[in-house]
Amino acid sequence: MSDLARTIRLRLAYAGTRYSGWQIQPGRSTVQGAVTEAIRRVTGETVAVKGSSRTDAGVHAFDQVAAFATASRLEPEAWRRAINAHLPADVTVTAADLAPPGFDPVSAAVRKRYRYRIHDAHVKPVLSRDVVWCWRSRLDVAAMTAAAGALVGEHDFTSFESTPSTRLSKVRTIHAVEVFRPPQAADPLGAEAWIEVEGNGFLYNMVRIIAGSLAMVGAGRRRPDWLADALAARSRPAAGPTAPPQGLVLVSIHLAPDPSPEPGSPPCPSCPNDSAP
Amino acid sequence: MSDLARTIRLRLAYAGTRYSGWQIQPGRSTVQGAVTEAIRRVTGETVAVKGSSRTDAGVHAFDQVAAFATASRLEPEAWRRAINAHLPADVTVTAADLAPPGFDPVSAAVRKRYRYRIHDAHVKPVLSRDVVWCWRSRLDVAAMTAAAGALVGEHDFTSFESTPSTRLSKVRTIHAVEVFRPPQAADPLGAEAWIEVEGNGFLYNMVRIIAGSLAMVGAGRRRPDWLADALAARSRPAAGPTAPPQGLVLVSIHLAPDPSPEPGSPPCPSCPNDSAP
Repeated sequence: MSDLARTIRLRLAYAGTRYSGWQIQPGRSTVQGAVTEAIRRVTGETVAVKGSSRTDAGVHAFDQVAAFATASRLEPEAWRRAINAHLPADVTVTAADLAPPGFDPVSAAVRKRYRYRIHDAHVKPVLSRDVVWCWRSRLDVAAMTAAAGALVGEHDFTSFESTPSTRLSKVRTIHAVEVFRPPQAADPLGAEAWIEVEGNGFLYNMVRIIAGSLAMVGAGRRRPDWLADALAARSRPAAGPTAPPQGLVLVSIHLAPDPSPEPGSPPCPSCPNDSAP
Repeated sequence: MSDLARTIRLRLAYAGTRYSGWQIQPGRSTVQGAVTEAIRRVTGETVAVKGSSRTDAGVHAFDQVAAFATASRLEPEAWRRAINAHLPADVTVTAADLAPPGFDPVSAAVRKRYRYRIHDAHVKPVLSRDVVWCWRSRLDVAAMTAAAGALVGEHDFTSFESTPSTRLSKVRTIHAVEVFRPPQAADPLGAEAWIEVEGNGFLYNMVRIIAGSLAMVGAGRRRPDWLADALAARSRPAAGPTAPPQGLVLVSIHLAPDPSPEPGSPPCPSCPNDSAP
C-alpha cells in the first residue's frame, strides 16, 4: 500500500438471498466479492475489502460496515456513486466517508443490532418468504419476552454458538433482547414476531440460536425460565435449534469514534495541502 | 361437466415476480397455469380455473378469487391442503369453499381493492425491490391526496386505460383513493408512499396509471388539480405514465352474496344426503 493510500469506509445494504454470505469463497457468489469487483471496475485496483460482520448465506444487511485502502484520489461521495453503478440490484452502498489510516471494521464495531423475523401465521408468506422464518402457528410473544430477559447482560454464551470456534472468550455483553410484533401493514395475511438483539459482539450463529430457542418458548414447547438454564449450561445442546438464515438481518452497527490525529502526526493523506496541526 | 360436478372456490395469494401474469399463455409460466397443474396432480382432472382478476406479469395478490368445477367429492378444506402441496413457494391457497353451481368469479366480484407501493427514499430498496416502484426522491403525499379526490365517484376512466379495449363502457365507480405512508418498520432505510384504490371494477392498467399520475403530482411535476382535468379529457395521453407492475398488489375482493337455493331446487350436490328444503 502506498504512503498516499486512503481508507474508504462504506455503509452497505444487501439482500443475502442470492449470495453464499459476505465472505469471498472461490467459485461462489458473495457480497464481499460483488463489492470488490465493483471497486475493481471503478479504478482497476483489486483491493482487500474488510467487513464488520461475516454474514452467512441468506442473511441480509441494512447496515454492514466495510473498508478498503486505495491509491485513488476519488472523494467518498464519488466512490459511493461509482461503486453503486457497478453493483447488482440487491447490494448498495448507502454512505461512504474517509476513515483514519488503519481503520479496522471489526475492532471498531462496538455495538451491533440484529433483527430476526418469524412469520407465525398459518398462510404461507408468498411475498416475504426470503426474509422470514415461516413458523405457521401463532407464537406467544409475552412468553418469549419473559424468557429473553435472561440473556441480557455479560454472559458466557457457549450454549449459543453453533460450532466450537477458536475464539478465546465466549463472553459477550447483550444490551437488549426485544420481542415484539411490528406495526406491519404490508401483508394482510401475515403476522410476524420480531426479535431484536443488540450486543457488543456475537458468536457464530448466536442470534439464530437465540431466535430458535425463543421460538421453542413462544410455541409452548419450553417454559420461559428454561432459557436461563440453557445459558447457564454452557453447552450447545442445552439451547434450542438454529433458526434458518433468511429471517436474519443486520440492522445497524455502532462504531467507536475515530481517534483524533495525534499532535505532531504527519498531515492526513486525504488532505495533502493541510498544514500540520 | 357431469351433473354431479361441484364448484370449488379458492382464495389465492401469490408473488407475481416469476410469472407472466395470471392468465395461461402457451410456453409461459403463469399463476393460472400453476394452479391448474396443481389441481391436475390432485385428481388427474384438467379443469378450467377462472379468476376474478387477470393480474399482469409481476403483479402480486393477497386475495385473488378463483373457481373451478370438478367431479371430485373432495371437501373444500381437503382441496386447499392438496392443492397447496403441489404449488410452488410463491403461490398459495389461503381458503377454499363450495360455491353455488355456475359461480362466476368475474361477475361476482363487486368490489376490489388494490395497493400500489412507491419507494421514495434515496437508498436502493435492496430487500423490497420486487414489490415497490423505486422512485428515489421524496413524494409529497399531501399533494397526492389532494389530487386523488377527483377520481372518487362514478366516472368515465378512458384516460386511465392503457390500450383501447373492447369493453363497452369505460365507466367505473371508485369508492376510495387513499394515499399514505404505512406504519413501516421493516426497512430502516426505506420510506414508502402507498396508494390504495377501491372500486367496483378497473380498466386495463387503471391502477398503475393512477399511480403513475399521482407520482407526477407527488414529485411536483403536475399540480394536484391537473388530475381532474386528466380525467375529464377522456384521453389516455392526458394522464400520467403507467407505473411498473411490481409495485401493484391485489389486496382484497369483495364478492356478492351467493344466491339462496330456489325453493324446489334439487338437493345441493355437496350434501347428497340432504333432504330437499
